[in-house]
Amino acid sequence: MIKIVARSVIKSGKKEEFLSLAEELITESRKEKGCISYDLYEDINSPNCLAFIEEWKDEEAIKIHNASPHFTTIVPKLEELREKNSEVNLYKIID
Amino acid sequence: MIKIVARSVIKSGKKEEFLSLAEELITESRKEKGCISYDLYEDINSPNCLAFIEEWKDEEAIKIHNASPHFTTIVPKLEELREKNSEVNLYKIID
Repeated sequence: MIKIVARSVIKSGKKEEFLSLAEELITESRKEKGCISYDLYEDINSPNCLAFIEEWKDEEAIKIHNASPHFTTIVPKLEELREKNSEVNLYKIID
Repeated sequence: MIKIVARSVIKSGKKEEFLSLAEELITESRKEKGCISYDLYEDINSPNCLAFIEEWKDEEAIKIHNASPHFTTIVPKLEELREKNSEVNLYKIID
């Protein structure tokens, strides 16, 4: 399992637009075979800071996701609503 | 539910020491009533970068955790093994 935390700051006034675009990305991503979980979170201390926290079966599942129609069409639109690029970290659990 | 991502860079050569200290913190934290999950992750792209990713019932549970004997004794020792302070973010899910 690989956990992804993709954190970004949303441009002021663009949060609602971001959320509605994100909703479609979340719905479609959760349908993917390799997707374990896919959620959007808000930073309690800075409401314009959002993070997708995702869990994927393996690196292959992430490759498939990154090439999917919903990812390739929606993510570029989300980028336009961000202050700067997302801070994306991929993690594996330490047992 | 509140999700915490506490990310830090471990001083070179101190990872094993960090992991053994962290193990005790994880074991004790998971016993807490308000703890939903408490895991340690390694950044796939920078192995000296570790993140506790935790889920707590509510803010009260986090307050209790932060005052617990295992937190107050172990976390200061972990701090000494970190390059700089952890980057700690508290998140609530967007439904």
